[in-house]
Amino acid sequence: MEVNTRKALKGTVAALIASATLFGFAGLANAADGQGVEQLKEHGAAQRIAGVYGNTKAKNVILFIGDGMGDSEITVARNYLHGVNGSFDGLDKIGQPNLNKGVETGTGQYTTFSLGNNSNDSLMAKDKNGKLTGSKTAGVITPVTDSSASGSGWATGTKTYNNAVDVDVEGNPQLNLIELAKAAGKATGNVTTAEIQDATPAVLESHSSERACYGPQGKWDGTDKNGDGVVDLKDAEAAGIGSCLANQLKANGGIGSISEQLIDTRADVTIGGGAKYFNQLDQSGKTLWQQAADEGFQTVKSGDVDGFKNLGEANQDKPVLALLGDGNLPTQFNPSVATKQDPAKDANPTECTVNDKWLGNKGASLADFTSKAIDLLQNNKNGKDNGYFLQVEGASIDKQDHNANACGQIGETDDLDKAISAALGKIDLSDTLVIVTADHAHTSQIVESQPIYALSTVLKNRDGSKTTISYGTSEEDLYGNGSDTSNDVEGKADPSKAQGNMSHTGTQLRIAASGPGASRVDGLTDQTDNFYTIGHALGLATDKADQDKLSDGATVTAKDNKNQVFDIAGFNGDAVLRYELKDKDGKVVSASDASTPLSGLRVKTAGTTTLDLSKAITSDAKYTLTVTGQQSGKTVEIKDFNGPNGTEGNGAADVNPGNNGAADNGKPVASGKVTAPKQNGVLGKTGATVLGVALLALALVAGGLAIKFAKSRDNA
Amino acid sequence: MEVNTRKALKGTVAALIASATLFGFAGLANAADGQGVEQLKEHGAAQRIAGVYGNTKAKNVILFIGDGMGDSEITVARNYLHGVNGSFDGLDKIGQPNLNKGVETGTGQYTTFSLGNNSNDSLMAKDKNGKLTGSKTAGVITPVTDSSASGSGWATGTKTYNNAVDVDVEGNPQLNLIELAKAAGKATGNVTTAEIQDATPAVLESHSSERACYGPQGKWDGTDKNGDGVVDLKDAEAAGIGSCLANQLKANGGIGSISEQLIDTRADVTIGGGAKYFNQLDQSGKTLWQQAADEGFQTVKSGDVDGFKNLGEANQDKPVLALLGDGNLPTQFNPSVATKQDPAKDANPTECTVNDKWLGNKGASLADFTSKAIDLLQNNKNGKDNGYFLQVEGASIDKQDHNANACGQIGETDDLDKAISAALGKIDLSDTLVIVTADHAHTSQIVESQPIYALSTVLKNRDGSKTTISYGTSEEDLYGNGSDTSNDVEGKADPSKAQGNMSHTGTQLRIAASGPGASRVDGLTDQTDNFYTIGHALGLATDKADQDKLSDGATVTAKDNKNQVFDIAGFNGDAVLRYELKDKDGKVVSASDASTPLSGLRVKTAGTTTLDLSKAITSDAKYTLTVTGQQSGKTVEIKDFNGPNGTEGNGAADVNPGNNGAADNGKPVASGKVTAPKQNGVLGKTGATVLGVALLALALVAGGLAIKFAKSRDNA
Repeated sequence: MEVNTRKALKGTVAALIASATLFGFAGLANAADGQGVEQLKEHGAAQRIAGVYGNTKAKNVILFIGDGMGDSEITVARNYLHGVNGSFDGLDKIGQPNLNKGVETGTGQYTTFSLGNNSNDSLMAKDKNGKLTGSKTAGVITPVTDSSASGSGWATGTKTYNNAVDVDVEGNPQLNLIELAKAAGKATGNVTTAEIQDATPAVLESHSSERACYGPQGKWDGTDKNGDGVVDLKDAEAAGIGSCLANQLKANGGIGSISEQLIDTRADVTIGGGAKYFNQLDQSGKTLWQQAADEGFQTVKSGDVDGFKNLGEANQDKPVLALLGDGNLPTQFNPSVATKQDPAKDANPTECTVNDKWLGNKGASLADFTSKAIDLLQNNKNGKDNGYFLQVEGASIDKQDHNANACGQIGETDDLDKAISAALGKIDLSDTLVIVTADHAHTSQIVESQPIYALSTVLKNRDGSKTTISYGTSEEDLYGNGSDTSNDVEGKADPSKAQGNMSHTGTQLRIAASGPGASRVDGLTDQTDNFYTIGHALGLATDKADQDKLSDGATVTAKDNKNQVFDIAGFNGDAVLRYELKDKDGKVVSASDASTPLSGLRVKTAGTTTLDLSKAITSDAKYTLTVTGQQSGKTVEIKDFNGPNGTEGNGAADVNPGNNGAADNGKPVASGKVTAPKQNGVLGKTGATVLGVALLALALVAGGLAIKFAKSRDNA
Repeated sequence: MEVNTRKALKGTVAALIASATLFGFAGLANAADGQGVEQLKEHGAAQRIAGVYGNTKAKNVILFIGDGMGDSEITVARNYLHGVNGSFDGLDKIGQPNLNKGVETGTGQYTTFSLGNNSNDSLMAKDKNGKLTGSKTAGVITPVTDSSASGSGWATGTKTYNNAVDVDVEGNPQLNLIELAKAAGKATGNVTTAEIQDATPAVLESHSSERACYGPQGKWDGTDKNGDGVVDLKDAEAAGIGSCLANQLKANGGIGSISEQLIDTRADVTIGGGAKYFNQLDQSGKTLWQQAADEGFQTVKSGDVDGFKNLGEANQDKPVLALLGDGNLPTQFNPSVATKQDPAKDANPTECTVNDKWLGNKGASLADFTSKAIDLLQNNKNGKDNGYFLQVEGASIDKQDHNANACGQIGETDDLDKAISAALGKIDLSDTLVIVTADHAHTSQIVESQPIYALSTVLKNRDGSKTTISYGTSEEDLYGNGSDTSNDVEGKADPSKAQGNMSHTGTQLRIAASGPGASRVDGLTDQTDNFYTIGHALGLATDKADQDKLSDGATVTAKDNKNQVFDIAGFNGDAVLRYELKDKDGKVVSASDASTPLSGLRVKTAGTTTLDLSKAITSDAKYTLTVTGQQSGKTVEIKDFNGPNGTEGNGAADVNPGNNGAADNGKPVASGKVTAPKQNGVLGKTGATVLGVALLALALVAGGLAIKFAKSRDNA
């Protein structure tokens, strides 16, 4: 029998197979050995089934993510909720053959590793030779991912470091599924039980070198922290929480925090927690809530369940931003406490009790969110005509597994299961691909009996049997000391429940799918393959070259004949823009910051980005403006146009930067477009990498905002 | 969208769905809740996809079992051996679509739970009302299986208790895949790196209430233990190891130990370890080695690698029994030692070294065993004409995971991977179904950094990165105290390596397949579904009714005209026979023991079982002999035949037990057959259950043989 080398095996791997014996690695030969960071850091490089596609297309895709929901966590919850021989009503239907005639299904496993190391240090410093010196990019693979690297993997197709949100190991933004879906004219949605700025939802909203860069003031909750009776930026300093790379902040010429970019990305439907971070202040002193409202968002704030229920439409004119809790949303079950070995636990196994703060009690469970999101997206014109992409996250499976809180993680798994059931009741698997998976596995293990080393909980299963769950992976013994506040419920930490901070695990994970394209999850894949599975099913631009083409129609147009303020549109293959304004002598009079890959203007995805140069364009002299898509490398140049007092004919548009063509065409408004798409233009082939200059090593904002969490895992 | 209830959901489950809210279980409703032990204990009752089959048939099936090889263990080994982004050459090819044009593939997960509890008490006592009182059958599901219950699951399709080998929770033998494959005329093989009597290979050889019932003297190694210079049964008592249910022993009228039944089952090819247990003595004082040789086996003993290499044929006339080590075979890598948190481990990550005792150094690795077995089976006439079933086990993934020995488990995973590669080089996936899975998951977890609670090892991966492995599930703190001898290498325990006895885990597991019928492993199934997947692909009798029919051709024939010794053949739907001899007055003069389901005569599978009644049939009076298949309920009666000195015509055969038909037909030999298959005959419909009378609660052999291991898990 001949086993053909599959397309997925890269040339490099094939070479390694041939030469494996040369490495002197004890007893190993003929192995398909893997690549290192230098190869894997490229977009799509970690795919295991690159180029292998079916022929089916889906109108819609719904991606369900159980954060931290490894096979063990699935089994724990099934045992408890439905009995050891039982089945989930929703979760176990996805990927299951023979349930629906003619529906394509798939189940498989994927690898979830990340790049860089586990340090909280996200600095991406380079030495004078351009060599990366930051610990994140030290060229080492990290076998255990966090939620941000894993989310970046399926959202963008690019492997990156733990802590990265849709940026590669060098900090270059990578386009995500919502950006690409919007570019394809689809409706989009993002639903979670976590803070909406948390990693898993954030990878559909933003590009950030730090996952904790929730808002312009990091993780400040927008309240009076210094007790001076006034809410202002001094309170953010007093709070001393959160961290952003300085150059990412708008105040420093960057593309802004996760919350600010959420507004720019403008999904049709956004539902989750994290309301309090929208109390932060933008550069003009407005809260982000106000900013969102000014941008046309329908906002629903913490606790306003009726407001949520009354939402009747969601579209690009009136997108929905419903954040029903200040922090992570309360879990369905009250916490259980894992303790050391104790026979009393076997005698009296735990039964979980319903948390009276759970929003499901009021009709605002994750299943309710999901139903609402699907209703809104199905009624959205883009959704009707072109389909939609929706991500739904059950976030606290992970968060409560970190806390060794079995009931917490089980209730959240139940919520996710019911969200899937709710979706199955509303969609048609003949045109909608549903995928269920996780971002990484977690600690909880089902064991024979209480372990001596680890904390454990004994649960009474639905069928009367007992599941003994071991939690043993915490790096530090935080048991009982209250220093872990990650079990924060509605902003109120309960120190008595802090039980150490259990670790993610690096095992390959289950992925299951039903609907057109579902069989692509069969076999062994990588998390980044999921980006291509979804993108291919929806017909999105997954390859870099196709993404670059999305900016071929980019235009820059003055808002009026003063030629001072410009509307930038059509840079659909970009997340970040750079501009440069020169005067008639070729001197740069204004330019975007270019010190980091996260410096510049954030693209309003599939919308119009405004560039106000009224302070720079003041005379009647001729100006030349170039606007460059940082990812696509596409450039629009408006050459030799006049300022507001210009006399030599208004408006000018030379769209081809190398061409001094006629500029004065009598039009009153300066405008330009990309007329000749250039694969190898100014920034074409090498694209973002060329512009991806070194981040300043010590560029963190000094003072309060630079203070980082002692641990970042607790939000993973 | 309408989701149809699948066939797999039993009526009981459907009823539970409707009534789930009635149970008062907090917050739960509309769930497909599972069944309890009373339902699940029946043959096939735990299937999740009952009755769902494809149309494809395979000529051959090879089942690869990585004992304890959960997804985490797979990832640990892949990371170390091939790099985090690497691939196994064999293991990762199975189930992978697109590697071979037109080859059916499947990947999914299955549940592995068992019934009863985790106690070592296997007694299946009933009270006077027939209610089971033994702890194994207390009506409780066990979320964590051992290797014997899980192996029994895929080998027989019946869920059972931990410690059971192919018997149900009431001790009734369940037919296994080798028995059924032989009944279908196929060649069969059984290959392992464990002792051949260990649970995973044992489930293809035997039916035993105790997995430790290795031989007639339990786990005695056949050496002089009491130092009297003579090897005899007193040494077995002195050894004081192993345990068998008394009534299972041949000396007490039972079907015999695992090793003895291996000889009766008579697979064409058997390769593994455990040679020393064949030094035990049968009732006549012969070693089991001698017994095997007398039965025509080609025997290859510990260390005889040349003997193994020279094996040139294997068939029912000359089956192969090659046991190349006295105990479990040495692992490829020397052991690594998991220790408590220590920064030095990060600074100097472990690299595994090759064990010079590994048989692979001499050309007798698991891959070599597998190649040899396939060669032998392909050249076997039954194999050529009808195909074959082969099981290959990588046993010490589990055994070394128990020992927190990362290198040990990794080397064994590598061995299994290479065995799969070897198989792929010899077979054709268009006619051979290859399945790769595990019996249960295990302890080792890949974590971010060394945990505080658990023991850990830091390994240097193939790609230069580090995998930190946590071992935290041991019930007792055996670290460093040397009381665990399960890391026995070639009979020589190394106490310095004993590191606690880590626990199996109860998570759902990966199963992957390539070849005809492979897609049946897709989605979520149960371990018992695997029996039906294999059985259906090979066209075996999987359902009880079809199994019963396999005994329709049963015959009983006197060996000569003395009518004292009888050949019993064709009871292919049975593992155990009962007989009863009555004299002319209807008085029972001889009968098989009937006190337990494991009492009686062991069927020589698809061969001839001899019944010697020369001590009972002594006069010339007429006798009536009935022989009953314990599983099928089929009975052969030879009525009113004469003893050796009989004058009233020799031979008699009334094959219909209810019929006093003419017996004297002039034939010199008494014989009988099942002429009218009776679905509801003497023991028909209820079959084995009726005969499955209570085992005697305290029937363990007194003395040395009754002494049990303090823990049985170390052999799991």
